Amino acid sequence: MTTALIVGAGGLPRALAEAMPDRPLIAAFDAFTPDGVTVDLRFRLERLAPFLSTLQDRGVTRVAFAGAIRRPRLDPALIDPRTAEILPPLIAAFRGGDDGTLRAVIALFEDEGFAVAGVGDLAPHLLPGPGLLCGQPTATDTADATRAATIVAALGAVDVGQGAVVQQGLCLAVEALPGTDEMLRAVAALPAPLRPDSAQGKGVFYKAAKAGQDLRIDLPTIGPGTLRLAADAGLSGIAWQAGHVICLDPPAMTALAGELGLFLWSRP
Amino acid sequence: MTTALIVGAGGLPRALAEAMPDRPLIAAFDAFTPDGVTVDLRFRLERLAPFLSTLQDRGVTRVAFAGAIRRPRLDPALIDPRTAEILPPLIAAFRGGDDGTLRAVIALFEDEGFAVAGVGDLAPHLLPGPGLLCGQPTATDTADATRAATIVAALGAVDVGQGAVVQQGLCLAVEALPGTDEMLRAVAALPAPLRPDSAQGKGVFYKAAKAGQDLRIDLPTIGPGTLRLAADAGLSGIAWQAGHVICLDPPAMTALAGELGLFLWSRP
Repeated sequence: MTTALIVGAGGLPRALAEAMPDRPLIAAFDAFTPDGVTVDLRFRLERLAPFLSTLQDRGVTRVAFAGAIRRPRLDPALIDPRTAEILPPLIAAFRGGDDGTLRAVIALFEDEGFAVAGVGDLAPHLLPGPGLLCGQPTATDTADATRAATIVAALGAVDVGQGAVVQQGLCLAVEALPGTDEMLRAVAALPAPLRPDSAQGKGVFYKAAKAGQDLRIDLPTIGPGTLRLAADAGLSGIAWQAGHVICLDPPAMTALAGELGLFLWSRP
Repeated sequence: MTTALIVGAGGLPRALAEAMPDRPLIAAFDAFTPDGVTVDLRFRLERLAPFLSTLQDRGVTRVAFAGAIRRPRLDPALIDPRTAEILPPLIAAFRGGDDGTLRAVIALFEDEGFAVAGVGDLAPHLLPGPGLLCGQPTATDTADATRAATIVAALGAVDVGQGAVVQQGLCLAVEALPGTDEMLRAVAALPAPLRPDSAQGKGVFYKAAKAGQDLRIDLPTIGPGTLRLAADAGLSGIAWQAGHVICLDPPAMTALAGELGLFLWSRP
């Protein structure tokens, strides 16, 4: 079985490719470039049908999606006739929010005869199950993680963000379009008087998948960079929904969390 | 009937005081200073009981709350014995989020025999009912306002923020602890490639009260400064929950919105 990784930016494509027994074909979307992995071919949404034929010609029977992409802007002049036939449901889904778009992408590949695999199928060790990877949350941290999980669940129900930061019960930030890194930078930039006294609890960043989201695509991802930003934001640690959040390099993250004094909690 | 306005920072205390037939007593909380209105007396939470006695001595029978305050930090050494008796429920409520704190504040004043009035009682013209104050939202703007209202309702259910910015169905930002102004500044600072093409719709800032919140305290407030920040963020306009959001100076806001090319929509 030949697998193609359809990749965007970031570190996940490489982590996935390294975890697979046979080297996958790496197909990069648009101008997005993954870190540390060689791109075999590139495609544009306007040429989706020829791209799918290329995959079939190369014997690809299974695809997986990995890495960050931004919503594309289409150049109608570039769309070929065959792509024009298969693209409309995808374009309609763009307006319905991320969940609908990603479901439409999966449906499109399945309709063309590809199996669609997820990180859980290809590299289950990147999706840690319940447990502490580093450190020990205090009672206040645990309560903050619980409150943040409640907030993220409410946001997920309306198809917004997958993260929040809570300190001593106060919601310091909620993730929206700009993403996790920007949210953590905004927390780091908060004027001290706006935040509670850190002696009583420094705050927790919590991350989860959206309720009901297809686990084969766009799972939230954290990595060493996330840990550094969380430390810069003065937080106690990071908690996430066990089995639903990708850790790019669990051993390196555990070591770095120890250096930074953060807990890492894959929360049941 | 003598009324005391218990005030924090910002423009609402003055707008309320000017709307009342008899000048109220202006009591400022802690170091917060309202704009353009003379403070008659100041109080600290640690001296709440003597402050309540002062109000009673001055013949105050009704209080109203106006203006922004931040969660106070208590200096236990300053708490007098009588205040120590009435403060514990308030301190307990601090940990339960804003809703609980504000309900506890109202209950405390009512227990001490004061009537608690809201902006709707004192200056109903600052709470516009349904209608367009300026401009005309497009179909995209209307859809964005609807989506933002859904997001804000989901956030309100978990006692977080009262605002969100949506552009072409995408949630650009969600309000958390730092408040509306910081959220709009963050939207203004978003890199252009992250935002949809503004030719298709520039985005809407939506503001609402939390579901079930007591309308006598901490209603969301917008003013001319909000309009300038919304214009800086490149938005089409501002929509809000009719009758639940304070407009500091509706005529001035309508005029300014016309200059800035924003719609102002008090949404039913």
